[in-house]
Amino acid sequence: MTTRIRAWAARTPGGPLQRFDYDPGPLGTEDVEIAVEYCGICHSDLSMLDNAWSMTQYPFVPGHEAIGRVVAVGEDVKGLKVGQRVGVGWNASSCAHCASCLSGNHHLCSGVQGTIVGRHGGFADRLRVHWLWAVPLPAGLDAASAGPLMCGGITVFYPLLMTNLSPTARVGVVGIGGLGHLALQFLNAWGCEVVAFTSSASKREEALALGAHRVVSSTDAAAMRALQGSLDLILYTVNVPLDWDALMATLAPKGRLHFVGAVLEPVPVQAMQLISFEQHVSGSPTGPRHAMDKMLEFAARHNITPRVEHFPMREVNAALQRLREGKPHYRIVLDADFE
Amino acid sequence: MTTRIRAWAARTPGGPLQRFDYDPGPLGTEDVEIAVEYCGICHSDLSMLDNAWSMTQYPFVPGHEAIGRVVAVGEDVKGLKVGQRVGVGWNASSCAHCASCLSGNHHLCSGVQGTIVGRHGGFADRLRVHWLWAVPLPAGLDAASAGPLMCGGITVFYPLLMTNLSPTARVGVVGIGGLGHLALQFLNAWGCEVVAFTSSASKREEALALGAHRVVSSTDAAAMRALQGSLDLILYTVNVPLDWDALMATLAPKGRLHFVGAVLEPVPVQAMQLISFEQHVSGSPTGPRHAMDKMLEFAARHNITPRVEHFPMREVNAALQRLREGKPHYRIVLDADFE
Repeated sequence: MTTRIRAWAARTPGGPLQRFDYDPGPLGTEDVEIAVEYCGICHSDLSMLDNAWSMTQYPFVPGHEAIGRVVAVGEDVKGLKVGQRVGVGWNASSCAHCASCLSGNHHLCSGVQGTIVGRHGGFADRLRVHWLWAVPLPAGLDAASAGPLMCGGITVFYPLLMTNLSPTARVGVVGIGGLGHLALQFLNAWGCEVVAFTSSASKREEALALGAHRVVSSTDAAAMRALQGSLDLILYTVNVPLDWDALMATLAPKGRLHFVGAVLEPVPVQAMQLISFEQHVSGSPTGPRHAMDKMLEFAARHNITPRVEHFPMREVNAALQRLREGKPHYRIVLDADFE
Repeated sequence: MTTRIRAWAARTPGGPLQRFDYDPGPLGTEDVEIAVEYCGICHSDLSMLDNAWSMTQYPFVPGHEAIGRVVAVGEDVKGLKVGQRVGVGWNASSCAHCASCLSGNHHLCSGVQGTIVGRHGGFADRLRVHWLWAVPLPAGLDAASAGPLMCGGITVFYPLLMTNLSPTARVGVVGIGGLGHLALQFLNAWGCEVVAFTSSASKREEALALGAHRVVSSTDAAAMRALQGSLDLILYTVNVPLDWDALMATLAPKGRLHFVGAVLEPVPVQAMQLISFEQHVSGSPTGPRHAMDKMLEFAARHNITPRVEHFPMREVNAALQRLREGKPHYRIVLDADFE
C-alpha cells in the first residue's frame, strides 16, 4: 500500500483540476487499496465539481467509475485478494448494520459514503474503498471500457431487477446518452421490446444499433399518441422535463414511470391517472452490491459495452469540457497515466 | 326474472332522487339478476349524481355496493345459482378478452362497464350484472353491513395484495372515513404496525379502536418529523391535498405513497426523493374479482365489518344529504323496502 496518492483535484467550485497529492493514512482493516487503471467520467462528477448539490468538499478529487487491481487489503477484508481486478462505483462504504444493509440494500444505508462525497475519488493512481464496494470484474469483460458500468450501468440495470421486469415487457427509454445508451443494450438483451425516445434525429440510427426496436421523437405529438397505453415501463434517464401528461399517457395499465435522471423541478403527477390505470412513478439510485455482480455477469454474457472515448488522465480538463458540452459518444474514460 | 325494475333515480345533476321504474329487457345470457336487499352509499355515488366526472347519464340510478340474492341466471352464467347471496361493487361487466381481462385484471379492462356508468345501479329492487362481478358472499359475513366492502373495502384491501405487503410493514392511513376505517381494520388483521393520520382530534379514540396502533395529526409538524423515514406504505384515502413534502418525508427507503382517494390537483413529486430513497408513488381503483374473493374471505375470518348507519331506501335523499355533510360513522347502507 502507498502512503502518497497522486490525484487530480479542483480547489474551487467549477475550477480546473490540478495535480494534487495526499496522504491516505493507514489502510482501514476492512478497506482495499486499488491501483487505478481507468476511471469513467459521470455527469455527477460535474455536478459535484460545481457543488450543484451543496455537499462538495475541496480540494475535490472526482471519479467514481474506477477499474483497477487490488494492491493491498486490510486484515478483515472478505473475498478479495491482491492482484484481483475490481470496479468501484458511486458508493465506497456502508455501515453494514442498519436495516437497509442487513436486507442487502447497502446502497440505501443511512450512513452510506459516496466515493467522491467527503473523500477522494478515482481521478488518481490509487483509490481506497470498503471491500464490499470493490466489485470483482468477471472474466471476459473488457476492463478498458467497463468503468461506466460501475455507475451508469448499474443505474439503468437495477430498475430491471427491482421491478422484476419481464422480458415480455414493452419498455421506453427517455434520453439516449451516457445512461440511455446502456439501457438500450441491457433491455434488448433482457428480451424486451425497446422504444427509444429522443428529440435528436441524429441519434435515430445509433439507437437502433444499440438495441432499440423503434425510435420515437418525444416532441412529436402524433407519434406519442400512437404509443398511448402501450408501455409497461419508462426509464427516464435525463434531467430535463418533458410533457409529463403526454408521457404518462403512453403507459399501459399497471405501467411505471421510473426516474434515474435527477429532474429538479417537481413532477406534477395526476393521482386520478395512477388510480384509474394502477400505475406507478418511482426512482432509484445506482443499486446494491448483489445487483452490481449480476449486472457485470449479464454485461459479460451479452457483450454489453459502454461506448467510450479515451483520454489520458492528464487531459482530464479537456475531457470534462467535452462532457459539459454534451459531446461524448457516449461516455468518457480516463486512462491513468501517472509516471 | 322481472320485466320491471323499481328504482330511485335523479333526473338532473345533483337533483333529488325520485321513484323510477324501467324495463331491463331480456336477461343477457351471461348476466344474473339480483334481488337487492341492501345497498351502500359510496362517495362516488355523489360524484356521479352531480356529474362531477362528466360521464353521468340521466335518469341516473346510483348504487354500487349492493348485496342480494340471485333470482335469475342467463344460460351461460358460470358458478352461480338462483338463491345464492352475492355482492356487487363498482364494476358490472368486462370484455373477457382484452390483455387486462386475460391476465386476471378485469377491473382494468379497456371496455369495463361501471355499475352506475351508462346503466342503472343498485338503489333498486333488482340489479343485473355479468356473472363475473356478482361475487358470492362467504358464510359468516353479515349481509346487512357487507355492502361497503364491495367498493370501499376492495379499494383499500387491493393495495395490500398488489404491493405484496408484508405483515412486518409499518403503514400509514391518511383519512379515517368511509375508506380509512376499513383500511385500519384490514391492516391490523394483516399484522402490520398501523399509524392513522387524521386532522380530527375527535377520531383519535375511534381510530385506535378500529386497529390503529398510533394516531398522528397530519398538521402537527413535530409529530410528522418524528415519523421521518419510517413508513413502508401510506394509503391515501381522501381527496384533499396535504403537505406533500412532509408526508413523503415519513416514507422509509423503498416506501410507497399509494392513492385510492381521487385528489384532483396534480401532486408535485420530487424525482430526487424517489431516486435517493428508491420510493414509489402509485394508485389503484377497486380491484380484480379474484382479490374481491380474497377480501371477503379475509373480512369474514377476521370479523372485519364496515361500521354502518342504516336508512330505509325510501329515505335515500336524507341519507345522501348526510353523506354530503360528511356525517356518517362511517358508511351508510340503504335497506331495500319496495312494497
